[in-house]
Amino acid sequence: MKPYVIGLDLGGTNSVFGIVDSQGVIKATAAIKTGGFATAEDYVAACMQALQPIIDEVGGIETINAMGIGAPNGNYYNGTIEYAPNIAWAHEGIVPLAEMFSKALGIPVALTNDANAAAIGEMTYGVARGMKNFIVLTLGTGVGSGIVVNGQLLYGSNGFAGELGHVIMQRENGRLCGCGRKGCLETYCSATGVARTARELLTTSDRPSLLREIELDKITSLDVSIAASKGDEMAQEIYRFTGRMLGEACADFAAFSAPEAFIFFGGMTKAGDLIMNPIKESYKEHVFPLYRNAQFLVSGLDGSSAAVLGASAVGWGLLEK
Amino acid sequence: MKPYVIGLDLGGTNSVFGIVDSQGVIKATAAIKTGGFATAEDYVAACMQALQPIIDEVGGIETINAMGIGAPNGNYYNGTIEYAPNIAWAHEGIVPLAEMFSKALGIPVALTNDANAAAIGEMTYGVARGMKNFIVLTLGTGVGSGIVVNGQLLYGSNGFAGELGHVIMQRENGRLCGCGRKGCLETYCSATGVARTARELLTTSDRPSLLREIELDKITSLDVSIAASKGDEMAQEIYRFTGRMLGEACADFAAFSAPEAFIFFGGMTKAGDLIMNPIKESYKEHVFPLYRNAQFLVSGLDGSSAAVLGASAVGWGLLEK
Repeated sequence: MKPYVIGLDLGGTNSVFGIVDSQGVIKATAAIKTGGFATAEDYVAACMQALQPIIDEVGGIETINAMGIGAPNGNYYNGTIEYAPNIAWAHEGIVPLAEMFSKALGIPVALTNDANAAAIGEMTYGVARGMKNFIVLTLGTGVGSGIVVNGQLLYGSNGFAGELGHVIMQRENGRLCGCGRKGCLETYCSATGVARTARELLTTSDRPSLLREIELDKITSLDVSIAASKGDEMAQEIYRFTGRMLGEACADFAAFSAPEAFIFFGGMTKAGDLIMNPIKESYKEHVFPLYRNAQFLVSGLDGSSAAVLGASAVGWGLLEK
Repeated sequence: MKPYVIGLDLGGTNSVFGIVDSQGVIKATAAIKTGGFATAEDYVAACMQALQPIIDEVGGIETINAMGIGAPNGNYYNGTIEYAPNIAWAHEGIVPLAEMFSKALGIPVALTNDANAAAIGEMTYGVARGMKNFIVLTLGTGVGSGIVVNGQLLYGSNGFAGELGHVIMQRENGRLCGCGRKGCLETYCSATGVARTARELLTTSDRPSLLREIELDKITSLDVSIAASKGDEMAQEIYRFTGRMLGEACADFAAFSAPEAFIFFGGMTKAGDLIMNPIKESYKEHVFPLYRNAQFLVSGLDGSSAAVLGASAVGWGLLEK
């Protein structure tokens, strides 16, 4: 077998490539901006330019088995990106990106959404090695999820299974979500949701907080995390609220697939115990007794390259078929 | 291959046996009361006495491949019934029932919970033939579920996946559930939940209703269904409330496994459009757009024998391994 696959972490802002071996070692990387292209053809052409030098660096395309892509609104069944709101060249239609890269490179290409790529990455190189039933929750701008059952990624009837960020957690007066509905988990428990909670608390009370030193519209989940680590009570309360809701949500998710672990991925996990402790406490309080033993883990993949590794693992998955 | 399997629908009250062919035709049946036995050994001995005549009737044990059992708190992985609250000889421990029947009969025996058996039955003989991703919801004394993904029953890490009756639908002031928690789906949407809603409405208002002719403690979901079909407004409202909550729950379930269909099973489905229409309406209103196309179906198995057929399908499943 050839030694490498290409992983592409296709984000709203950056597209990061890595050439990865079967142990999860990244041999070469490259990156371009995702935006600024009028068409998907232009985007792929720019990617090929960025890729060529690192492909040469590892010994040419003959050393590469396949490519895996993790992308927002990615559909594994069709290899397409569908109506991705944050990508100018993909927000109005269906882009057959896997096929386009496959033609350009002459190798098989698989594509899935970013949270599914994270789950496959954890199973291939991370803390889920050897597990057959687990759920990855990505806590970033939104809340994404990748669900593994019987050792397989759950894609469902149409390729779009596992959008747990859009489970309704607040049925009365829930927060408006980008999806048009109200009360979705991600309106509370994403990084954006944490900032929203902070703004709500700051504007509806006079309580003192270090967060008052920051311009209201510019508060981020990182600011809240820093304030909390300095002992700020309001900031600690915000993380407790967020974690407790995640724990309740996981209790419901457990009733679905009885996972052996929930694995948290993404920037917000840097808050550490601040977020993980309330998740675990709340889960224990709310879960149906049969599911009490689930573990709560933080991603085992190196933060900066985790998404690229996840994408590359999607490429390795192609070879097992 | 031998022509038959034995199906056992092990309920809290009755244990019903069927000898079933590969087309789902029940060739012979027998039944005993489930209760009244001090030990599981006594229960199995009584089952063997009831089974022997129908086994002889179809040509002896040589014609039978396997046995499938659908039972409350059944664990497929271990072939056990675990702490089943309504069964005297199984409520205090773990009964290795599959192994006991296998020794007594000399054939392979598989066991799963009743809702999973219903799902396997739908896939083998019912409306889910050919489907690979669907969810069966059983609406009876409780709300059970059997989830099929990628053509396989979802058992999860411990054999107990798919307890969707215990997802929390009412986080504030929810109804107390038999599981000790509050607000579980089954406290509202089971037959028992429907009767509970009726009692709540009757005691907290003076509104006229045909249901007032029935003693409060004796109202059943069937009474509510009959009153609704006679045009009783309160009874219709009760079914609308129940169906709408089920529709909201299904919208969340869709975000998990993107099923192509939800299939409803059990006595309450006899209410027909009275329950199915509000389910469908509410689902369309609440679902994330990606899952809009799921079908809503009523079980395709003959009511009185559906559970036995489901159990027998678990037996056929053994032969595919």
